[in-house]
Amino acid sequence: MHVDELETPSVLIDLDRMERNISRMQTFCNERGLAFRPHIKTHKIPDIARMQVEAGAVGIACQKVSEAEVFTAAGLNDVQIPYNIVGAAKTARLADLALYNRITVSADHLSVVAGLADAARANDITIRVLVELATDIERAGASLDDLLALAQRIDRDEHLHFAGLLLYPSNPAMRPMLQEALDILHRAGLGVDVVSGGGTGAARYAAEMLELTELRVGTYIFNDWSTVSKGWAALDDCAMAVRATVVSRPTTDRAILDSGSKTLASETVDGLYGHILEYPQARLYKLNEEHGYVDLSACDDRPVIGDVVHVVPVHTCVVSNLHDRLYGVRDGDVEVTWPVAARGKVW
Amino acid sequence: MHVDELETPSVLIDLDRMERNISRMQTFCNERGLAFRPHIKTHKIPDIARMQVEAGAVGIACQKVSEAEVFTAAGLNDVQIPYNIVGAAKTARLADLALYNRITVSADHLSVVAGLADAARANDITIRVLVELATDIERAGASLDDLLALAQRIDRDEHLHFAGLLLYPSNPAMRPMLQEALDILHRAGLGVDVVSGGGTGAARYAAEMLELTELRVGTYIFNDWSTVSKGWAALDDCAMAVRATVVSRPTTDRAILDSGSKTLASETVDGLYGHILEYPQARLYKLNEEHGYVDLSACDDRPVIGDVVHVVPVHTCVVSNLHDRLYGVRDGDVEVTWPVAARGKVW
Repeated sequence: MHVDELETPSVLIDLDRMERNISRMQTFCNERGLAFRPHIKTHKIPDIARMQVEAGAVGIACQKVSEAEVFTAAGLNDVQIPYNIVGAAKTARLADLALYNRITVSADHLSVVAGLADAARANDITIRVLVELATDIERAGASLDDLLALAQRIDRDEHLHFAGLLLYPSNPAMRPMLQEALDILHRAGLGVDVVSGGGTGAARYAAEMLELTELRVGTYIFNDWSTVSKGWAALDDCAMAVRATVVSRPTTDRAILDSGSKTLASETVDGLYGHILEYPQARLYKLNEEHGYVDLSACDDRPVIGDVVHVVPVHTCVVSNLHDRLYGVRDGDVEVTWPVAARGKVW
Repeated sequence: MHVDELETPSVLIDLDRMERNISRMQTFCNERGLAFRPHIKTHKIPDIARMQVEAGAVGIACQKVSEAEVFTAAGLNDVQIPYNIVGAAKTARLADLALYNRITVSADHLSVVAGLADAARANDITIRVLVELATDIERAGASLDDLLALAQRIDRDEHLHFAGLLLYPSNPAMRPMLQEALDILHRAGLGVDVVSGGGTGAARYAAEMLELTELRVGTYIFNDWSTVSKGWAALDDCAMAVRATVVSRPTTDRAILDSGSKTLASETVDGLYGHILEYPQARLYKLNEEHGYVDLSACDDRPVIGDVVHVVPVHTCVVSNLHDRLYGVRDGDVEVTWPVAARGKVW
């Protein structure tokens, strides 16, 4: 099928660019001796994860047990969940997965560790647990004060394996904290298999973070207007574009696209909801659910109703989560249609 | 099943409140002699639309042909699409639907009308067309200067029926423009069946908009933190709540929920992403895809890891679009599990 036959809005993936992005990040990690663990939240598609593993990734990261269920069922059997898995229903499902897969999770509190231990014991298996360290993002994560007690609690439990440390994002500013954490563990005689860092932005500084053994990133595979705006990628590194139609031209300066927040999500960069490739001077300044508002006042050429445009979205990961399928395109042909198998998996 | 058995995050619908909201809006329209046409974007579930029609609605509104396909297949056979349907593939699907259903669309430009006429002629049917008028929201819509030519073009086409006017939102400030539009049509001898107004906020002023024959609203059925913040609904009119778990308590003042932008979407009111019913002083101030950041500094009582809370989301319609199912709850029991049949229908 030619790409022109697709209805709009549709989410296109430029396969040449995606493959180049996969290869480039894997080479970057190989050259630095870092294990590479792509975060699948960006695509949510097992076939793409398989391409990442075939390129050299050690496994995948995902954020929810339900995502791990989708990917392990598809044969991706080394899965890290950098998240506190809380509640008996979820830890039981996690333990089920750990029977036949290499499952690693993180924890930042003794109560989380206790829940994991109960589930592992009930299944008579061992779950690998990383301690998540707090960073300057001020999200989850244990403080250095709590690290030793947590690591020892994990290490002592016969159904848990203390696998090391995890942080997000692993920016260079976190290095002194990370060094102190490793020193605390070293002095206590606790071995550290893995020091897992993450973040597409932080990846740029991974060479300076000598303590890392592993890198988790997601967005690098598609890139988006956010990574371009931050200078982390060039526009022609962006593999995802939303094919959209101009459905209204109510004034000389305004166009309306058939792509709103149900298609592009509601995140912004500098007040804009994406970048229109055919009209780089246009400003996609507002979205309703099914309407994209475009200011054309800076454009010399202007589209008419029925014209098709391509929008580089602000944040690829949330776009993938809105759509049932992504289309892999090469040389104008739709080479593959992927169901977004882990779309909407929030459990 | 008791609601406590549901995994988190899950989207709960309080059935008593939903039924009360349905009844209240229908009564409001009945008392004013307005036809009521609920917009199904808020729930995307045919069974709920059927409840709205059984309560007295004349039909439904939706925004995409693919949504109309879902709802007509489920027996909702009077569907209005207040949107320019552009492109031969979409107008052909629209014409297919119009064979066995009462389909009305809007148009704001002659090229849109021409596309509708071509598809209707190919199917030898008649499509009902409203002219959408531009309003102060500055989205789509024809100006008064273009109205007459559009209406006459529709009226003259043997495969189109000029059905009247449509505007969004139908705020009282639009009344002089609407009166002028009706006068233009009257002087040209064009009959107007329908004057369709819309907007949950605008509904409050529908009694002042004597020209309206019909009201389209969506959010009223669930309400949300946005409608509450605007004073359009009380907190106990909110039928939707997201059941979430506290998965981290990294500091005294911060909690992390297992509900981020993949669950609650990224829209905000006053910088907040929702209202936590159990902790009304808490501030849900930031979301990542799977993390909800809560500032507890103003709270006397504070949750621990594993506690369940309920979040009234900022915008119900975009939340429904993220989830595969909604749970209808009454007296603590899950009375019904609805697949969100029109979730992600963007074509």
